[in-house]
Amino acid sequence: MVRQGNIDNPPKTPLVPGFECSGIVEALGDSVKGYEIGDRVMAFVNYNAWAEVVCTPVEFVYKIPDDMSFSEAAAFPMNFVTAYMMLFEVANLREGMSVLVHSAGGGVGQAVAQLCSTVPNVTVFGTASTFKHEAIKDSVTHLFDRNALACSGLVLIADNGDNSNHVRGGLVLLAPGPCYARISSSNPPTWWQVEKVNPIKLYEENKVIAGFSLLHLLFKQGRAGLVRGVVDRLIGLYNQKKIKPVVDSLWALEEVKEAMQRIHDRGNIGKLILDVEKTPTPLMANDSTETSEAGEEEEDHEGDSENKERMPFIQ
Amino acid sequence: MVRQGNIDNPPKTPLVPGFECSGIVEALGDSVKGYEIGDRVMAFVNYNAWAEVVCTPVEFVYKIPDDMSFSEAAAFPMNFVTAYMMLFEVANLREGMSVLVHSAGGGVGQAVAQLCSTVPNVTVFGTASTFKHEAIKDSVTHLFDRNALACSGLVLIADNGDNSNHVRGGLVLLAPGPCYARISSSNPPTWWQVEKVNPIKLYEENKVIAGFSLLHLLFKQGRAGLVRGVVDRLIGLYNQKKIKPVVDSLWALEEVKEAMQRIHDRGNIGKLILDVEKTPTPLMANDSTETSEAGEEEEDHEGDSENKERMPFIQ
Repeated sequence: MVRQGNIDNPPKTPLVPGFECSGIVEALGDSVKGYEIGDRVMAFVNYNAWAEVVCTPVEFVYKIPDDMSFSEAAAFPMNFVTAYMMLFEVANLREGMSVLVHSAGGGVGQAVAQLCSTVPNVTVFGTASTFKHEAIKDSVTHLFDRNALACSGLVLIADNGDNSNHVRGGLVLLAPGPCYARISSSNPPTWWQVEKVNPIKLYEENKVIAGFSLLHLLFKQGRAGLVRGVVDRLIGLYNQKKIKPVVDSLWALEEVKEAMQRIHDRGNIGKLILDVEKTPTPLMANDSTETSEAGEEEEDHEGDSENKERMPFIQ
Repeated sequence: MVRQGNIDNPPKTPLVPGFECSGIVEALGDSVKGYEIGDRVMAFVNYNAWAEVVCTPVEFVYKIPDDMSFSEAAAFPMNFVTAYMMLFEVANLREGMSVLVHSAGGGVGQAVAQLCSTVPNVTVFGTASTFKHEAIKDSVTHLFDRNALACSGLVLIADNGDNSNHVRGGLVLLAPGPCYARISSSNPPTWWQVEKVNPIKLYEENKVIAGFSLLHLLFKQGRAGLVRGVVDRLIGLYNQKKIKPVVDSLWALEEVKEAMQRIHDRGNIGKLILDVEKTPTPLMANDSTETSEAGEEEEDHEGDSENKERMPFIQ
């Protein structure tokens, strides 16, 4: 949404986009404890992540596990925290349930699919462009073309619906019984066109509708402590090799336009990474040193975080 | 809502109200297994519970624990299943969370308060008429007059809001972060007046809105199996003395008018029970033999259940 300029109260240009990154700590605020210069870290940033050096409050910074590369780390926090909170905090996913995820080939979609596999007997229905099916078929129980929403009887986790029919369709698809619609979006038309919800219908049909915005939670609502608990659990799952960020490709900062086009064209499977040490020659995903995410699924946000304890680091 | 005639497609009169009861099995369908004549049981019924003899499919029948009286059993299934599913299936209640419950002195309100006490460190904010505060103060952490909604920053479980301000107030009160509004109602004005919900707001504010109707779940949506699992867990909690139905008073069938008036005037604390063996002299709650609930918090319902296996029993 930042990329397309479709947010309320957009920040004034010039601005540097980007809400997450990985790198090495270069300097610490006076009162910062628990981190040292040279630490490998990943972080949320309230804009400015697509840069060589980033400052962010220590409450948004997490140490990278030894086995995780910088490019994986740059692809990790936003997608997995969003997917985790959506599945386990909002939708209360448990054994035997089913999940429908839109854009199953995207970063959040892949995180949802992986996290579902940590719960016994969860069926994942995914929609994705047909050309992605071969690449993602192992992560999803049943795959559908993104234009064919023919499945029914589901706990629905609707993510990144890129047109309002997906969201409306999703609501209709919910099974009777406590079921869940999760709505987020990387694409404004979903939001501008979506219909208002009649609570009477929710009651009659035993349905739930939920909104979730990680950026609002972090930067507007002061819930960094809650998010840190989730990151800790996710790092535990990573160390147990139960989840692994999917990196689509690495790009030099100079290639940001081409990277954006790939996202816009829905060509990616997983996250695009802006690698500040990369020279402008497209390569497919592999390890790198210090990286910055290329803004897949960035969400709207404006305003300032409280920058009491800034921790600058090379990124 | 049945009592006040404020439901869609109301059943034709004459009809016998009532959706739950307790009693002794008097006869069994040919294919019924697991029950015998003489068993003490409690049951959901799709209307007709306020009667001396009731037929209902075996899927809605549960054996009464040895320590539970008939009057407790008649007050048990609807309130506790509703409260349990709302708290643990929909709202995902966990340690450290807070709950705001309207009508904390009512049957569902008392069930919510008791179930919250089974989770460590849950704070319960309750609203109730001031004259009930002394009687229910031990079950609720903080009590407010039902007209004073001054609390904030809560996981909200809004139940039985008897005017639309309660529901709207509830939505506003939700804390940022994954929070939950549960809406049910014994009183139609809540529903008819409630505003539609804008999903964009849910997203920006990280909120959830949920509807829950146990009667729809049971009789329209075929989820008796799901509900049986919940009843089993609740009976476990009862046997561990962690929960106990609150019986307000017992009434003879002939006193149904006075019983209804007491509910309408919000005079009750807990459930009113129609006791088919009682003579028309008002008594306060004590044990009895075979009873029928007096329709507190009855919900709208029409249509027929699948009556493949009917099990008649005296009630």
